[in-house]
Amino acid sequence: MSNRTKATRRDQAERRQEIIDAAAAIFHEKGYAATSIQDVAEAVDILKGSLYYYIKSKDDLLFSVIEEVHEGGLRNLEVGKAADGSALDRIRGFVTRHAAYNAANLVKMTVFFHDFRSLSDERRKEIVEERDLYDQYLRGVIAEGQEEGSIRSDVDPKLAAFWILGGMNWMYQWYRPDGPEPLGVIADAFADLSVNSLRDPAWEPGD
Amino acid sequence: MSNRTKATRRDQAERRQEIIDAAAAIFHEKGYAATSIQDVAEAVDILKGSLYYYIKSKDDLLFSVIEEVHEGGLRNLEVGKAADGSALDRIRGFVTRHAAYNAANLVKMTVFFHDFRSLSDERRKEIVEERDLYDQYLRGVIAEGQEEGSIRSDVDPKLAAFWILGGMNWMYQWYRPDGPEPLGVIADAFADLSVNSLRDPAWEPGD
Repeated sequence: MSNRTKATRRDQAERRQEIIDAAAAIFHEKGYAATSIQDVAEAVDILKGSLYYYIKSKDDLLFSVIEEVHEGGLRNLEVGKAADGSALDRIRGFVTRHAAYNAANLVKMTVFFHDFRSLSDERRKEIVEERDLYDQYLRGVIAEGQEEGSIRSDVDPKLAAFWILGGMNWMYQWYRPDGPEPLGVIADAFADLSVNSLRDPAWEPGD
Repeated sequence: MSNRTKATRRDQAERRQEIIDAAAAIFHEKGYAATSIQDVAEAVDILKGSLYYYIKSKDDLLFSVIEEVHEGGLRNLEVGKAADGSALDRIRGFVTRHAAYNAANLVKMTVFFHDFRSLSDERRKEIVEERDLYDQYLRGVIAEGQEEGSIRSDVDPKLAAFWILGGMNWMYQWYRPDGPEPLGVIADAFADLSVNSLRDPAWEPGD
């Protein structure tokens, strides 16, 4: 590939990213249903016709925004799956990473939570399957903790996973980067609350 | 007041309620920004001109939906404030009531969470003040629990309140009345997770 072709591809990738970022901001501001392709074209100062070179439809744009935020989430999940330690240690790591990720992706997370049900059926199904990987990971670690004895046997893994994901995901409603608590303090507090809500009081590490 | 006047007032109140319920359903389905007054008029089979007898604007409709769901929440809060028992008992009661309330008001809660930022400035301020009463109640009970020794001293009351409210409010994303877990099981699980996340392991009731 010539240098010129490489440069063009890089320019195109950057342009596409710029379009996706602008779409996320406008969906967040106006809501998906009230946004037009024309709004996005104006935001990136491009002709509507030229925009279609990068995306085919508004559904394409919504899917690209949500897919991007999911891909990052799935990379966090891979880190979690590769981690060692007790189930409680792994839950602590997962909560800390997920809280930081939510904080860094507030706009796209909001678009995902508010608008993913507007996706076309096939794409919604794909996103739901990816989202379910999160639930399943957390449920699985909780069940492993019950087997090793670190997590109370009366915890329902499914409901506890919803609870913990809810506590973290709710950040999109209240967290602001310029708020009074540093993100590290928030992530640690959430990790403590998660671990303490699950821990079997009779368990000692090394049992 | 004559019986006829009473009947007319009751009819008007019922009609108004019907309009608010229809608006909530359409905001939920289409999003606030994409909904027109005409959509609501058609849903309740009334002329747009007649609708203005009950409401003045789309902002009025949104405010009425959110105000209604808040009024019920504030009644729950009054029950909480009147409750006896340790801080942990009161948090258990609060979480159980709030989870049941969320479950019973899924559509209006969703409209509140997704669209309250679209309210006119003055009304948004009013709703935010009411919402903050929730946070403050929960923070206050957590602080009382720290004073009485039932709640760990290393818990941050503000972040723990966000966490617990998030776990409960997130129900709007996954709870369905025809889902596999009865609401009572979910509410009890959430109450246990809340209480266990906060409880000081050294505390015994009656201390």
